[in-house]
Amino acid sequence: MSDTRRRSASAVPTIRDVAQLAGVSIGTASKALNGTGQLRPETRARVMASAQQLSFRPNDLAHSLHRGQSFTVGVISNDSFGRFGMPIVEGLEECLSDSRISVFMCNATDDPQREARHVESLLGKRVDGIVVTGRRADRREPLRVAVAGLPVIYAFSQTDAPDALCLLPDDEGAAFLAADHLIRLGRRRIAHVTGPERFEAVRLRRAGYQEALAQAGVADDAAPVLTGEWSEAWGRDALQRLFDADRAAPDAIFCGNDQIARGVIDGLRERGVTVPDDVSVVGFDNWRIIAEATRPPLTTIDMNLKELGREAGRRLIELIAGKRHTGVHRLPCSLVVRASCGAPQPPT
Amino acid sequence: MSDTRRRSASAVPTIRDVAQLAGVSIGTASKALNGTGQLRPETRARVMASAQQLSFRPNDLAHSLHRGQSFTVGVISNDSFGRFGMPIVEGLEECLSDSRISVFMCNATDDPQREARHVESLLGKRVDGIVVTGRRADRREPLRVAVAGLPVIYAFSQTDAPDALCLLPDDEGAAFLAADHLIRLGRRRIAHVTGPERFEAVRLRRAGYQEALAQAGVADDAAPVLTGEWSEAWGRDALQRLFDADRAAPDAIFCGNDQIARGVIDGLRERGVTVPDDVSVVGFDNWRIIAEATRPPLTTIDMNLKELGREAGRRLIELIAGKRHTGVHRLPCSLVVRASCGAPQPPT
Repeated sequence: MSDTRRRSASAVPTIRDVAQLAGVSIGTASKALNGTGQLRPETRARVMASAQQLSFRPNDLAHSLHRGQSFTVGVISNDSFGRFGMPIVEGLEECLSDSRISVFMCNATDDPQREARHVESLLGKRVDGIVVTGRRADRREPLRVAVAGLPVIYAFSQTDAPDALCLLPDDEGAAFLAADHLIRLGRRRIAHVTGPERFEAVRLRRAGYQEALAQAGVADDAAPVLTGEWSEAWGRDALQRLFDADRAAPDAIFCGNDQIARGVIDGLRERGVTVPDDVSVVGFDNWRIIAEATRPPLTTIDMNLKELGREAGRRLIELIAGKRHTGVHRLPCSLVVRASCGAPQPPT
Repeated sequence: MSDTRRRSASAVPTIRDVAQLAGVSIGTASKALNGTGQLRPETRARVMASAQQLSFRPNDLAHSLHRGQSFTVGVISNDSFGRFGMPIVEGLEECLSDSRISVFMCNATDDPQREARHVESLLGKRVDGIVVTGRRADRREPLRVAVAGLPVIYAFSQTDAPDALCLLPDDEGAAFLAADHLIRLGRRRIAHVTGPERFEAVRLRRAGYQEALAQAGVADDAAPVLTGEWSEAWGRDALQRLFDADRAAPDAIFCGNDQIARGVIDGLRERGVTVPDDVSVVGFDNWRIIAEATRPPLTTIDMNLKELGREAGRRLIELIAGKRHTGVHRLPCSLVVRASCGAPQPPT
């Protein structure tokens, strides 16, 4: 610690020194110095004043970043550029391009050899860091990077390596939010129709749902959980099982994704059961093409993946600047209220 | 021409010379020399023999590419990483990574200033070329690139600049294919329910559909065209109009996209009309999450966008190597037969 202080007192001032003096984050200081991003004028002025006081010149920026030779980072995706990976890359790219960092896209297609070739290629390009993303948030092998200290972030992906930084949506908290919303609407027989047990997200979402029901004193037999597939067909099938079972029909159904919710709602309509008057339905994903076209439009959880991508960008900039981040961080999800739950909708 | 020959006789041999001697494309020669991609062993051997005969060393590869300093290219997308842009980038990245070229992803979000900043940043990174892609294939302003001769390809995007190279799906041919398929199934009252008139794709698809019907001698009043929105709700609404109209109901409906087709099929089922026995339905896009979940699963056009991306990659490699390509090229689409048209399905 004292060693660090001594070094920064004698050496060329870094962007960390500027940020510290101005009382802002490194990302904000970077934006202010680059003249990019949306900052309040007074923030920008404070950063510029700090830079002047420390004799920090814009050209020092490159030196102040730990390995900042290239202003490029790589994204390795196993999502085949799909619907979970893309909003993350969108947020990441938006955040990084504000700091003039460009993003290499690499599709590893779940092929370890292809992933290894991409890593080799990215190292050859002298990237300042790598973001790993996936089609599901389950654990994977750590990325094999032969360069010590190269910042790596797992976004919507995780690994067991002790020093890894993993950013994930808070599936458990999101499910609690959804179930609690249904309880507050007066629902008491709340079923959960979800995807395959082998997904960590399925287990976490069930736990959050059960916690909300336990807090409200809902009995277990009023809270059946049906695990199956991530499909509309499974939603219709599960709905039939719920209504044919030897117990009172549910007055609410919390679904593990929007496709299941779509199948559940189609099934309810075809049985003559009205949504949301007879049964409230809540989905998960806020996949708008499904959620908005469902009849009635679907209340659902949004994992805020674009914001998760932005957060990965901010953290990566800090890692590149020498800050240390490790551990698994769960970021908040939100409930998007449409017509299928019966709650008053916010004005649009 | 003679000038070119003289130069290549005296100078260091290029990959073009190797490719020409081996009778293969520059892309294939590149793969063979890099030991990447899937080539027949005899092709690879022929390229290696040609390289040896010309004293072409692998290290010459970089020099042989026109501006090949960086082995990077940029993609500028206005599709917010969406469903049309992504398969294109996927195919492009797959093709280019076989030639060890990495891809920078830039999201311009339809903001000209943001696009200009991305171009500036890409030029700063010394990219060897740029691919422009969009959320729709309509005409746009040419990309403003201040570097003369930098290869630029418009993929699922087009511009009027006379020397631009634009790769687009053959919307007109695809619609002909779909309508002709319905005619061959014996259908004679074939309606077309499609998206907004302002899309070039809407106009081209209608033209292809009408050409097929004209060739089969179908009268105009048996071929109503309804333009509206790209949504399920419009599909259901249009269906009602078709069945409430003062003419015989259609025995087939060709839809401008899969969401419309989904709405049409839901509407038919809710009227008690059987698909495909009473009415055949064909969609457009092969958006699997919709097409496979429709009841019955949807026969639809696939624009082969991943292959369009690969073709953009091959062309870009050739442009970088000094070859000239200009003009608008329409690439073939295919018909994916599922249950909604009534044709025998190919074995899966």
